[in-house]
Amino acid sequence: MSTSIHFYFDYLSPYALLGWEKGKKICALKNWELRAKPVVFGALLDKWGHKGPAEIPGKREFVFRDIMRKSAAFGLKLEFPQYHPFNPITALRLSLSEVSGVNQEKVIDAIWNAGWIRGEDIGSTEVVVAALERAGLPGKLLFEKTSDPVIKTILKTQTDRAIELGMFGVPTMMVNGELFWGEDQWDAIERFIEGRDLLDRASYEGAVRRPRGIDRKKAAT
Amino acid sequence: MSTSIHFYFDYLSPYALLGWEKGKKICALKNWELRAKPVVFGALLDKWGHKGPAEIPGKREFVFRDIMRKSAAFGLKLEFPQYHPFNPITALRLSLSEVSGVNQEKVIDAIWNAGWIRGEDIGSTEVVVAALERAGLPGKLLFEKTSDPVIKTILKTQTDRAIELGMFGVPTMMVNGELFWGEDQWDAIERFIEGRDLLDRASYEGAVRRPRGIDRKKAAT
Repeated sequence: MSTSIHFYFDYLSPYALLGWEKGKKICALKNWELRAKPVVFGALLDKWGHKGPAEIPGKREFVFRDIMRKSAAFGLKLEFPQYHPFNPITALRLSLSEVSGVNQEKVIDAIWNAGWIRGEDIGSTEVVVAALERAGLPGKLLFEKTSDPVIKTILKTQTDRAIELGMFGVPTMMVNGELFWGEDQWDAIERFIEGRDLLDRASYEGAVRRPRGIDRKKAAT
Repeated sequence: MSTSIHFYFDYLSPYALLGWEKGKKICALKNWELRAKPVVFGALLDKWGHKGPAEIPGKREFVFRDIMRKSAAFGLKLEFPQYHPFNPITALRLSLSEVSGVNQEKVIDAIWNAGWIRGEDIGSTEVVVAALERAGLPGKLLFEKTSDPVIKTILKTQTDRAIELGMFGVPTMMVNGELFWGEDQWDAIERFIEGRDLLDRASYEGAVRRPRGIDRKKAAT
């Protein structure tokens, strides 16, 4: 049976784009299956009371520089979407396999390309539908499917499931129950799948059981 | 004049250890000066109302696996400190150049080694002093210096300054006013210093000026 990698993502994160491009490349090479799972990043942040990178001054600027440099090193010239953050919900619903079917990868590529290479406003339904049509996909027809309450529920359920599985950010790749977060994880995934994982499990299990020695509020300077 | 890289860190972060080891290596090779700047990570988090990686369920476990894998790939076998998080204040004060002087690098190496390679409780003054003595350093004498109110103020001032400079996490490396966050930044730093930066500044300046298209609370699924 072929190895299957579940790829959880949201169009808000350019790291997810870079992770997607790297993933497509290595999965094609290794003959692994890459299954795209759109999720709502904002719901993951809400769940854990966390802030997104673009919500912290200084971090926003750094991650913009960082992802532009890393993408350039991979051969991708990013142009940020017209607005950021934007509402990704329509784009995410269109990207569900239950909506896009056999065209899922093409739909996802077309949306990434519009938003992060052409710098268009993929928070706009009109822009996303036009991007799909331009890529030779039935954008209007696919968009009509997204108004089905069942489809709306699927995106929500998939997001809830991601949270249950312990996901806190995107992209997250899941392989045989193991979670890998970030575009830089493909080397680790390759080693994991091929039985060459560098993680010392016994030492790791000990580390996660370490008791806390202090709470942050008490560590005054 | 030699290139100088300011390295901001806290012993709470094993990514800072890996960044430090990588930094020492490349700086020795390139003849760059690496200047260690201890800061209180918790104060950076407090400032931005952010959570540390170890404060989010799922993320804590992932970053533990991730840093163990990345350290192993670099040749470091990590053993997590006995308690985590711990109070790093004494260890940080000992690591100020104003305390450790010409021995600063040796002091820092001895503390990292005790906490993250031997897995000792470097939140304990006794443990840290013993680690310094074992490394041939005057641990007791150095510890006496840390009770000087001037020294306490220096750590606080250095942390405040890091926040003013826009730092939000550790390790952060500063080179000619540019901030690089994370142990994975040495390639980017090398390119930056040598005039081969992959960042398209015009595109980046446009990206950071992008207006927000949505607030998280409004993006309901």
